[in-house]
Amino acid sequence: MKKIYMDYVATNPMHPEVMNAMTPWFMENFGNPLSLYDSGIKARTALDNARTATANLIGAQPKEIIFTSSGAESNNFALKGIAFANQSKGSHIIVSKVEHHSVLNTARFLEKHGFVITWLPVDNNGMINPADVEKAINKETILISIQHASPEIGTIQQLAEISKIAKDKGIILHSDGVASVGNIPVDVNELGVDLMSFAAHQFYGPKGAAALYIRGGTRIVPLIYGGIQEGGRRAGTENVPAIIGMGKAAEVAKTNLQKRIGHVTPMRDRMIKAALAVDNVILTGHPEQRLPGHASFVAEYIEGEAMLMLLAGKGIDCASGSACSSKALKASPVLLSIGVPVASAQGSVVFSIGEGTTNEDIDYFNETFPQVINRLREISPFSKGWEGMEDSSCTAKK
Amino acid sequence: MKKIYMDYVATNPMHPEVMNAMTPWFMENFGNPLSLYDSGIKARTALDNARTATANLIGAQPKEIIFTSSGAESNNFALKGIAFANQSKGSHIIVSKVEHHSVLNTARFLEKHGFVITWLPVDNNGMINPADVEKAINKETILISIQHASPEIGTIQQLAEISKIAKDKGIILHSDGVASVGNIPVDVNELGVDLMSFAAHQFYGPKGAAALYIRGGTRIVPLIYGGIQEGGRRAGTENVPAIIGMGKAAEVAKTNLQKRIGHVTPMRDRMIKAALAVDNVILTGHPEQRLPGHASFVAEYIEGEAMLMLLAGKGIDCASGSACSSKALKASPVLLSIGVPVASAQGSVVFSIGEGTTNEDIDYFNETFPQVINRLREISPFSKGWEGMEDSSCTAKK
Repeated sequence: MKKIYMDYVATNPMHPEVMNAMTPWFMENFGNPLSLYDSGIKARTALDNARTATANLIGAQPKEIIFTSSGAESNNFALKGIAFANQSKGSHIIVSKVEHHSVLNTARFLEKHGFVITWLPVDNNGMINPADVEKAINKETILISIQHASPEIGTIQQLAEISKIAKDKGIILHSDGVASVGNIPVDVNELGVDLMSFAAHQFYGPKGAAALYIRGGTRIVPLIYGGIQEGGRRAGTENVPAIIGMGKAAEVAKTNLQKRIGHVTPMRDRMIKAALAVDNVILTGHPEQRLPGHASFVAEYIEGEAMLMLLAGKGIDCASGSACSSKALKASPVLLSIGVPVASAQGSVVFSIGEGTTNEDIDYFNETFPQVINRLREISPFSKGWEGMEDSSCTAKK
Repeated sequence: MKKIYMDYVATNPMHPEVMNAMTPWFMENFGNPLSLYDSGIKARTALDNARTATANLIGAQPKEIIFTSSGAESNNFALKGIAFANQSKGSHIIVSKVEHHSVLNTARFLEKHGFVITWLPVDNNGMINPADVEKAINKETILISIQHASPEIGTIQQLAEISKIAKDKGIILHSDGVASVGNIPVDVNELGVDLMSFAAHQFYGPKGAAALYIRGGTRIVPLIYGGIQEGGRRAGTENVPAIIGMGKAAEVAKTNLQKRIGHVTPMRDRMIKAALAVDNVILTGHPEQRLPGHASFVAEYIEGEAMLMLLAGKGIDCASGSACSSKALKASPVLLSIGVPVASAQGSVVFSIGEGTTNEDIDYFNETFPQVINRLREISPFSKGWEGMEDSSCTAKK
């Protein structure tokens, strides 16, 4: 059977060069980077090099990069760290409704600890209107957190516009760049962000290595207290092999970025065209301002999990939304925020492609996807009368 | 030149079986454990197995294990998570003075957020008197955090005595087991702890994988919010290879624990005997209740960094204290708490041995260490008059 991985947004396979870079650091060079003898110094030097490579990917200075263990940790660190560091200045935080759970749930935690959150709406394409950001700001506002690109609907926000507003008002801007960094050009100075989260396994690096970019001079309270690692801002023995892998992945991504974008974009466009030719399949997210390897849809009158299973049965691995909510089986707040009705949100599906995707894979997808949708509609009792579902007793099954 | 690693307490080389267990999970099986298709399910099953093996090492149930990225993260998670979950019950926390920085500094953070901390003293061997714990408890007490074994002075606390007191009073007990788990027998039920932190790289597992044991039924607030990983208690895409490595390291440690202890204990005793034969070298920590591979000293009238450098020059890699403070160049709070004077604390040194240590290494150490001390005392202007150092102008150099 054909086997096609179309869930690059959940995680990527590691690049062979990344594996090669990591290998010597597990057993051969295992020193603790804080140790003062040779093997410690060697590890510390390798970390410094990884930090430089990682900084280069986003146009930052090495000392502005704090290594963490995941994008979720970076997001928690950014929000709590900035909130607690600026508590004396104000208590208002602005967060968009399309953020990842690691931002949404951290904001809810802060809400319980004395902060006031404004949840910014988006339009039907998932796009935030910079004017709405401006309107939401008040004299208590200390932080704005806006995702760069959505892993769920692919939409890329107009960060540079938003950052001008934040800068004018002297408010710190954090962006969750987990889905964007390594996949589209990201320059923290052009975007004007003060903090940015990103994760290596989103650009062919290892799981367990991620970073928070913190613009020089920005005060932040640590999320993980302890030793003096990462300049005292993130304690814990460094995950040396994974950080070195992240550095290599960043270097490879910087070199190959345009080639990678050029590889996936036409294939993604072919997928979107084929999928939208199926009745009642709707593109979610922005039609143009979207991640190059990202095609997301709602197939109306379809139960999403059944669709994923049938696609997997045909060898196509994909997701119903963000990987973190795939098992939660709740209607995605991101889809609801772009105006997708609850019933339709059940039929959401995300295909994300990457370096390993071929034109033959797309041919197969274009042939298989319509078959799967048609097959599900044939066997579904709701296929014709689905619109009324919310009023019918069948909703009890949900 | 001879090259001897005597800093196993800073980090260990990975066991070859651990490397073998991890290897297939970087490139071949890279699925996200939350994904619903085959490669995701495969990763999730492997995580489940690693969780079982990790739980077995400490006599816990698999569902009581939450994987984290480091011992520091586990300690931060335990203290903040229990404090914030029990804020309505009380605001008092008891922490010993010999805790790792990841506990001490987290307690200081909580102090700024409305909690009251009692800092428990220790005796000259670094031992906490259970009666002092009992005296420190008041009706506001919600959490006690006591290290199991000290990475700096090797002392193993009487946790089972302390846990009886905590249990009697209905207070949650956390223990930092980073230096103990995998190195001495640890059973969370025999010890009676409610939470315990531990890290894989302390028992020949990978860096980047650690865990927090949380006794079933214990409420905790997440440190890292986001997706539903780890039962919603610790978000972030799982570091699959490292967690699988931790499971394998736990399995190997459980099998080999007595053999490992039998290997290092007599060697450690030989080291201690030889070092104490040198004038004005004092053992730090408890003479009997100490980690089997751990020999720590204060060499009076010696500048610690010079000692480390000279030892490294002779091929012996060791540390001045905990790895996390080796570059901080401050007198260790642990040494001060056991009554070592500030000046003497500068001459602290920790030798920690492990699986790779041989009797020939010990012979070399026993021959070299006295030479190094004598050499340093010959060249030191303080060698005879060091006692008066704190009053002399030379202290300005510190």
